[in-house]
Amino acid sequence: MSTTSTKQFMTTEQLLEHWQGHRNLTRRTLEAFPEKELFDFSIAGMRSFSKMIVELISIAGPSLKSIVENSIEKYDESSFNPTTKVEILKKWDEETLVINDYFKQISEERFQETFNLFGEFEFPIYENILYFIDNEIHHRAQGFIYLRALGIQPPFFWERF
Amino acid sequence: MSTTSTKQFMTTEQLLEHWQGHRNLTRRTLEAFPEKELFDFSIAGMRSFSKMIVELISIAGPSLKSIVENSIEKYDESSFNPTTKVEILKKWDEETLVINDYFKQISEERFQETFNLFGEFEFPIYENILYFIDNEIHHRAQGFIYLRALGIQPPFFWERF
Repeated sequence: MSTTSTKQFMTTEQLLEHWQGHRNLTRRTLEAFPEKELFDFSIAGMRSFSKMIVELISIAGPSLKSIVENSIEKYDESSFNPTTKVEILKKWDEETLVINDYFKQISEERFQETFNLFGEFEFPIYENILYFIDNEIHHRAQGFIYLRALGIQPPFFWERF
Repeated sequence: MSTTSTKQFMTTEQLLEHWQGHRNLTRRTLEAFPEKELFDFSIAGMRSFSKMIVELISIAGPSLKSIVENSIEKYDESSFNPTTKVEILKKWDEETLVINDYFKQISEERFQETFNLFGEFEFPIYENILYFIDNEIHHRAQGFIYLRALGIQPPFFWERF
């Protein structure tokens, strides 16, 4: 490979910090929802914000565990069925530690290796991880509109820590 | 620095490809809007999708130019005032080339250097660039809800090229 094709954009530690900054913002978005509307408010027939959060929780930690252990597991969101905001926040914080723990076990070389995530998404590991973050930003933005439609000011997009 | 603190997450070329993949998806989102609603549809008092796109166009290319030329310019979206979708699409495609051109002129070392973007956002260059992408994902997700509220199926989130 030429030198230009191996120039580093950022380190793995910087990516993890960037991700956890996003996760802090998503946590604040979650906190801003009124209890009832977190579970039942919707626009245009979309899912409730709690359902979107359950998706995020079902992707991040389980995927990293699967990558580190090199074991392909099917996507499954059926094991977490929260009915209160406090339950979701607790799980969110537990997953922060799970993510930090497993992420740090991925070697530099492995980020470039292909992994068949959930037996469905066969991409380099760095691309799968970028997808988790992008998907979180995407759904959180939908949460921002739900909040605005409920007359609630969302947190500031640029505040992360 | 220890070896763990310099482990590479991805190369600059991978980041650029990732970004242009997102820009393709944003372009398809733009194309999916009906002409009139692109400029005047809104939910919860938010901006039209055309205004959000003008913001994205006013950030990406101009920022990279500013970084490469090491010249701090104020943020300015007043110079581009499109009134048709075709005008926005044309500008979007022009900016794709601008982004590719300037991005490739940023050296590996510079991504870690601080730059005072628009004279307002003093962060490492890699963080500023991640912000451009995150901000695009965020506003495009709002465009997705606008489309759904208009009864239009948005493009698939995972389709990029």
